[in-house]
Amino acid sequence: MPEAKPKLSMILFSGDFDKAMAALTLANGAAGQGMEVTIFFTFWGMNLLRRTTLESNRFLEALFKRMMPVGVEKIGLSKMNFGGVGPWLMKKLIRQKDGQTAADLFRMAMERQIHFVACEASLKLLGIRPDELIHYDHLQIAGVDQFLQNARESQISFFI
Amino acid sequence: MPEAKPKLSMILFSGDFDKAMAALTLANGAAGQGMEVTIFFTFWGMNLLRRTTLESNRFLEALFKRMMPVGVEKIGLSKMNFGGVGPWLMKKLIRQKDGQTAADLFRMAMERQIHFVACEASLKLLGIRPDELIHYDHLQIAGVDQFLQNARESQISFFI
Amino acid sequence: MPEAKPKLSMILFSGDFDKAMAALTLANGAAGQGMEVTIFFTFWGMNLLRRTTLESNRFLEALFKRMMPVGVEKIGLSKMNFGGVGPWLMKKLIRQKDGQTAADLFRMAMERQIHFVACEASLKLLGIRPDELIHYDHLQIAGVDQFLQNARESQISFFI
Repeated sequence: MPEAKPKLSMILFSGDFDKAMAALTLANGAAGQGMEVTIFFTFWGMNLLRRTTLESNRFLEALFKRMMPVGVEKIGLSKMNFGGVGPWLMKKLIRQKDGQTAADLFRMAMERQIHFVACEASLKLLGIRPDELIHYDHLQIAGVDQFLQNARESQISFFI
Repeated sequence: MPEAKPKLSMILFSGDFDKAMAALTLANGAAGQGMEVTIFFTFWGMNLLRRTTLESNRFLEALFKRMMPVGVEKIGLSKMNFGGVGPWLMKKLIRQKDGQTAADLFRMAMERQIHFVACEASLKLLGIRPDELIHYDHLQIAGVDQFLQNARESQISFFI
Repeated sequence: MPEAKPKLSMILFSGDFDKAMAALTLANGAAGQGMEVTIFFTFWGMNLLRRTTLESNRFLEALFKRMMPVGVEKIGLSKMNFGGVGPWLMKKLIRQKDGQTAADLFRMAMERQIHFVACEASLKLLGIRPDELIHYDHLQIAGVDQFLQNARESQISFFI
């Protein structure tokens, strides 16, 4: 029987551009070291998994969803967002340096088959349907219990 | 001798409504799985344990305390607070969905006898007296050293 | 062969005054218990390690660096910053209580020989040169891979 891989489990609660980049950088680094990596996307972090903004029929849901940005290219910085100037400036800087943008890191995470878990309760609360999420073979929908089971067996756990 | 329960240790540094909900959801989930859960409330997180706003005699303390919200029903969102509209909207949404509000999660945590620890240094700094805290049998006042001892034996630790 | 010391590994991503104080308090407490402590300063957290604001030749770098505060005495609160009044008020309060300021905690961390690691990618992105960092024997520059190797062997890991 092969030895179990060491694990990294992260909760991505934040929907901030810079924190998402940090989470994805850690995820890709750990996967590159042969660790088994799981990211549990919840609350604001859920926006990274959203593909479209199809209308919701319920008013409150629709209002709340409208207020939330969609996708890895649209999210703001946790500091110095300046109405979007901050993220724009950072992307410029990253390109100048031949660094990886958030979108690059996101794609790399999928290439490295990092487990993405969409928080079931957040989906329900925000009225997001599974077909509004990105297409990815290693994306599943699950609750906090399953995440905790995995985190208990992990060498490293982070709340981001 | 019975085997020690697996442990979850969290520092709740944030006083944001949404992060408090995330911490309490993790706490309740872990306790439901038979884990021993400890939440160390420090800094802004301390506001969740405050029961009243009795006056302080010292001006600076009083000013700082006045600026801080009191109790689980009064705290704001980490994003999109909109002068309180965000939390109100979220509570509405949660009720529509028959979900659990922050107050529900807080009560459930107490029913599940989750260990609440009020950070001694934060109490002293903010001039909060023990009698200003909520009444709860499993609430104790302790320092960071005790928290670290517990975290070292924990399968999962989070800073929230 | 002596037993390895238990380890605490922290990522300090935030550049907020209050979160830096929390990280340094945990670091000093853990070092006081004989733990081996590493703080990986990345992104906004990198500002705590900056010594000067020498000009950068590249415009975008220079603009981004200008927007970032420098050093442990200049950073703001994560909440209620009020244009600097919040941190000023907190320092006043701490002095009244004979508590430790952020600068005290920072010096103590260096006395306790806590390992400081400056994130290589953040330095490159922000155009910060090694000679712009504080002088400290236990400061090194490294990447996320080395941090993860250390975190895997740590009893406690936090993302702050």
